[in-house]
Amino acid sequence: MAGNSFGQLFRLTTWGESHGPGVGCTVDGCPAGLELELADIQHELDRRRVGQSVVSSTRQEADQVQILSGLFEGRTTGSPLAMLVLNSDAHSAHYAATKDLYRPGHADYTWDIKYGFRDWRGGGRSSARETVGRVAGGAIAKKLLATFGVQIIGYTLALGDLRAQVFEEAEIERNIMRCPDSVVAAQMIERVAAARQAKDSLGGIVELRARGVPPGLGEPVFDKLQADLGKAMFSIPAIKGVEIGEGFGVALLHGSENNDSFVRHPDGQIGTVTNRHGGILGGISTGEEIVLRLAAKPTPSIAQPQQTVDHAGNPATIEVHGRHDPTVLPRLVPVAEAMLALVLADHLLRQRAARVTFPQP
Amino acid sequence: MAGNSFGQLFRLTTWGESHGPGVGCTVDGCPAGLELELADIQHELDRRRVGQSVVSSTRQEADQVQILSGLFEGRTTGSPLAMLVLNSDAHSAHYAATKDLYRPGHADYTWDIKYGFRDWRGGGRSSARETVGRVAGGAIAKKLLATFGVQIIGYTLALGDLRAQVFEEAEIERNIMRCPDSVVAAQMIERVAAARQAKDSLGGIVELRARGVPPGLGEPVFDKLQADLGKAMFSIPAIKGVEIGEGFGVALLHGSENNDSFVRHPDGQIGTVTNRHGGILGGISTGEEIVLRLAAKPTPSIAQPQQTVDHAGNPATIEVHGRHDPTVLPRLVPVAEAMLALVLADHLLRQRAARVTFPQP
Amino acid sequence: MAGNSFGQLFRLTTWGESHGPGVGCTVDGCPAGLELELADIQHELDRRRVGQSVVSSTRQEADQVQILSGLFEGRTTGSPLAMLVLNSDAHSAHYAATKDLYRPGHADYTWDIKYGFRDWRGGGRSSARETVGRVAGGAIAKKLLATFGVQIIGYTLALGDLRAQVFEEAEIERNIMRCPDSVVAAQMIERVAAARQAKDSLGGIVELRARGVPPGLGEPVFDKLQADLGKAMFSIPAIKGVEIGEGFGVALLHGSENNDSFVRHPDGQIGTVTNRHGGILGGISTGEEIVLRLAAKPTPSIAQPQQTVDHAGNPATIEVHGRHDPTVLPRLVPVAEAMLALVLADHLLRQRAARVTFPQP
Amino acid sequence: MAGNSFGQLFRLTTWGESHGPGVGCTVDGCPAGLELELADIQHELDRRRVGQSVVSSTRQEADQVQILSGLFEGRTTGSPLAMLVLNSDAHSAHYAATKDLYRPGHADYTWDIKYGFRDWRGGGRSSARETVGRVAGGAIAKKLLATFGVQIIGYTLALGDLRAQVFEEAEIERNIMRCPDSVVAAQMIERVAAARQAKDSLGGIVELRARGVPPGLGEPVFDKLQADLGKAMFSIPAIKGVEIGEGFGVALLHGSENNDSFVRHPDGQIGTVTNRHGGILGGISTGEEIVLRLAAKPTPSIAQPQQTVDHAGNPATIEVHGRHDPTVLPRLVPVAEAMLALVLADHLLRQRAARVTFPQP
Repeated sequence: MAGNSFGQLFRLTTWGESHGPGVGCTVDGCPAGLELELADIQHELDRRRVGQSVVSSTRQEADQVQILSGLFEGRTTGSPLAMLVLNSDAHSAHYAATKDLYRPGHADYTWDIKYGFRDWRGGGRSSARETVGRVAGGAIAKKLLATFGVQIIGYTLALGDLRAQVFEEAEIERNIMRCPDSVVAAQMIERVAAARQAKDSLGGIVELRARGVPPGLGEPVFDKLQADLGKAMFSIPAIKGVEIGEGFGVALLHGSENNDSFVRHPDGQIGTVTNRHGGILGGISTGEEIVLRLAAKPTPSIAQPQQTVDHAGNPATIEVHGRHDPTVLPRLVPVAEAMLALVLADHLLRQRAARVTFPQP
Repeated sequence: MAGNSFGQLFRLTTWGESHGPGVGCTVDGCPAGLELELADIQHELDRRRVGQSVVSSTRQEADQVQILSGLFEGRTTGSPLAMLVLNSDAHSAHYAATKDLYRPGHADYTWDIKYGFRDWRGGGRSSARETVGRVAGGAIAKKLLATFGVQIIGYTLALGDLRAQVFEEAEIERNIMRCPDSVVAAQMIERVAAARQAKDSLGGIVELRARGVPPGLGEPVFDKLQADLGKAMFSIPAIKGVEIGEGFGVALLHGSENNDSFVRHPDGQIGTVTNRHGGILGGISTGEEIVLRLAAKPTPSIAQPQQTVDHAGNPATIEVHGRHDPTVLPRLVPVAEAMLALVLADHLLRQRAARVTFPQP
Repeated sequence: MAGNSFGQLFRLTTWGESHGPGVGCTVDGCPAGLELELADIQHELDRRRVGQSVVSSTRQEADQVQILSGLFEGRTTGSPLAMLVLNSDAHSAHYAATKDLYRPGHADYTWDIKYGFRDWRGGGRSSARETVGRVAGGAIAKKLLATFGVQIIGYTLALGDLRAQVFEEAEIERNIMRCPDSVVAAQMIERVAAARQAKDSLGGIVELRARGVPPGLGEPVFDKLQADLGKAMFSIPAIKGVEIGEGFGVALLHGSENNDSFVRHPDGQIGTVTNRHGGILGGISTGEEIVLRLAAKPTPSIAQPQQTVDHAGNPATIEVHGRHDPTVLPRLVPVAEAMLALVLADHLLRQRAARVTFPQP
Repeated sequence: MAGNSFGQLFRLTTWGESHGPGVGCTVDGCPAGLELELADIQHELDRRRVGQSVVSSTRQEADQVQILSGLFEGRTTGSPLAMLVLNSDAHSAHYAATKDLYRPGHADYTWDIKYGFRDWRGGGRSSARETVGRVAGGAIAKKLLATFGVQIIGYTLALGDLRAQVFEEAEIERNIMRCPDSVVAAQMIERVAAARQAKDSLGGIVELRARGVPPGLGEPVFDKLQADLGKAMFSIPAIKGVEIGEGFGVALLHGSENNDSFVRHPDGQIGTVTNRHGGILGGISTGEEIVLRLAAKPTPSIAQPQQTVDHAGNPATIEVHGRHDPTVLPRLVPVAEAMLALVLADHLLRQRAARVTFPQP
């Protein structure tokens, strides 16, 4: 398969480059009859949009989405939903000057070696602008999940060594870092401003939670729920690490410390007393909250001089100008939520196909 | 797709349960003409086999593999290679007593809720015995990769808080922990013995390296090389975290610290001075060494009493007997290597399809 | 994808060569809880088996199937079902003498040019023996379909210019031609005997019917039900034409003659008065009987001398000995039924995933 | 998988409804570096366009295509090519009056039963307008194939009982029936005019040829070349039969008549003296011309009164107005060519991946 589609039954295909006519996507496999409005999608795109604050790029894009198919009288028809966002504020001139130099930490070299040449304007297809299509598709997945009672949230857990100490859910969308700890959020904003000043950038950690996920999702042995989540998260630009539940912390634990005891919850459902497993056991959701963390590298585009080579391998110095976020974290949150939603929507449909009630002996 | 296949062009399908007649796999898409011997596969299965040492389960399985198709006069034919390993040392009685109880940290509950019932004998399909098929398939992938100059190694990097301090490659297969630091290996072995004594188990970290990977492998945007690697690794039982290159360490770095400068290597190839990126940029291999780390949880099967519930949700105490490894690490190494090999073989073939030389303008 | 798997959610992978250790398959995606016995599969394999009569090859194979996984206490577990049939009566010597010559009408040349060499023993993977795996997998699909009330039948409609004039369903399995017209069946048997005498072979037409198929199966626009059926049927060795409902007859009709009027059937279901459409409209099943016809070429293996070339392109004369059916029709019937069952089982599961009942406005 | 994508490595996804904002597609997997102009695609869309002549619908659509991504400086980049055609001449009022009635021969009933409701405007997604995306995608496939020397042609072979008696290739695009026999073409045009007068429609047969196809394409056993072609052709609206080479004619032949003798051609290539096999043996291309025929049913939309039922199953009479072709044949030709091109492009890439030259023993 060509690599621009994701999911089996709920399937997203994205297309578009940073400085081409537009970016967009097609969602195929969304069940018919789902109520959907343009605003559902626009809301998520607005959350992802650049130019929102001091911590983000100053590129201004309205990012108005159009739905071109698959919707009739306010409901999905079962046919593919095509969505389009025109590009409007592309300044390719920033990129022309250095188009023969390989920006450190970027995909310039690897795309050249893979494809023989590349659309160098704004990073072309390797630009994070590609994630517009993910967020648009994820918005539909979220809408579908909501009808099954599944809710998804994401937030900035850490920026450098600053880490949220408290979790106030209502705080997340109130600060521009999307950090659930208002005090730490303020420190993060200062830290980002300092990095921008220093022509530098910062890495961090995003955390995701999915609540109300029915038990039984995930298809052993290769399409375990955590496997498809791992793929989804590692497909997002800048992600270098993914963990579930206790994550790398399990390396330090004994089995007697790490195992979560099973219990019957007050509502009669079986679950666990603790949730070190992060909502997935044996590749299948347990019904407990799904918890994931993603490590995002510092934005590779920095304005200070860096050593590199040109297309021919000759040494060169590059300063990457353009309008770049000193940290991707706040804008990463809606993208990561979208990928989580896409995986869960897909597995929800897969489980519907798999679970047949036969007469029992 | 049902979840027991992995890969697009080089495709593995596994089957089999812990205490059924056998386990096995089919590899479809291996190019015709590859020289292959039974010993190539048996060698890898022997590395995975249980009963090898004090750090592993005492289950004794010869694990003799048979190749049932796809090989003719010592070479692959391009047709599917079916492989079979009969099960010989299955003691289901260990499991019958507790078959109605949900073992903490295991897939018993989730398989029941997903499928309605389960083959409880030895964990059935959720047993790590399923990985026999992965290792057999991975052995063929390794053989294919070797003809392209790609070499894969894996080892135990850490057990609990014990971490290899030196990297002596030749040491890895000399100690039963597969640790590249002989001094730390000895400490690890003591630690495992103590855990077994205490009816407990230990987590740790495996590291993988792939050398000689040609630049250009990986299919943006969703089938980026790290995305398929992430899926591959998270599909392995017990894995709770995966990182590439600097991994979670990037959260603490500035862009100026994390970016790897490009350089022309002495052999004329473009590469990077440092390798914090771990061999992949923009989803595509750079030609530098690919470096991955996996966090494995402590074996959930422990002989001390644990709280749980039965099928009906009634509280119960369980002691998990049977023959279990106090740590999965040494046996995880060949499994993780196999998954790495499967991903690289698949992407090698995908890149062959993608890269056409057209006349240039 | 490598080409030895079929289906999306109910997925068959086959493997094996004519004169290798055995042939077999894996079925992945069969829902858990389906009651299944070895006899269900053996029954279909026995229908396909050679050496049954004067119209078939004299090769003797017991074709005893083993189920190696995915079954527990008489029910499917949701894990892959691996099945194995050992080869027992392979006479490779018949083939050694002519292994460098390209048999007309066979795959010898194309496999050589595709793969660089081939397993020439008994046709290797291109042998019709490969269909054992299809029939085994199709038997499980039939069992699944039966629980939903779907019934599948196939029969020989025509051999050369002999065509069944009446349709007596009970007659089909009573004569060795599997023809629903006992009078014509007798004529066919004579015709086959004469062809064998003349060292020649005969083509014909198989017809398939599926009853009780629920309306709504099929996934426009590319995975229309007839599209997946077309693929399934054309994947069977010897098939050169496939038609649905009126088939090629529609070329001669006016719209006013070809359109089937809709009507409410006595049971309250909407359907059509006539069934020229063959049970599928717009790519989706209507609930009317699905009717397909397949044109099978005469067996290319004939004992009379034929002109050909050898591997190097030198002219040669070949007489194909071995044990070959003068017509494939009777043994084609269970194979075609199996493929029909596989498509319907797959689409049944796909439709389960697709059809969600949302609150209506 | 949702059903709106086709192909494995060269992969088309289409979207759009007859009376929605537009129709379009995404092509993923086209190799980078292919020279491509808008005119390449527009040319094929113009061939498919309605309103061209007395034999077609009078709907007027400019069908101007836009390429939104994947193209840079006149060459494909290896990233997905998104294409869009806006709808401009949609008269939904024609359809509103009969939106509760099921048009005979149409997908109204089956889409309602599958999806619960439907976009009834102009047939919605089930309209032949959907084929715009196929033709746009197929144009790129044709361009790719041309660089490998593969040429595709299609034409009307028969309309009702009128059948081309001579094959003058240059004639095909000169008459509005796309018939290679100018005399018969004139008769066909009269026949269509008469059918339109009689408020009726006509079926027929399209023939396709692919020349210069390299031997070796096709992936046994399920993705045989004829299997993927069968699927492609049966996915086109109105197709009820598909045959390859001699097709249904093989049912009447003996093996000694049907087998094509192998020969070394003057250019040194091995091929066959005759081409009854139609360019494919054992599922793999032989290098001989690939020949296919498709039976297309008469357009179901006819203006004379027909019996049917409404949504509730009540009897009703319907007269289908709107602007419909009395025969789909001339416009079917470019659609069928597109599907043929898509299959061949996909298999060309698949074969590139499969064929590795290893050192020989």
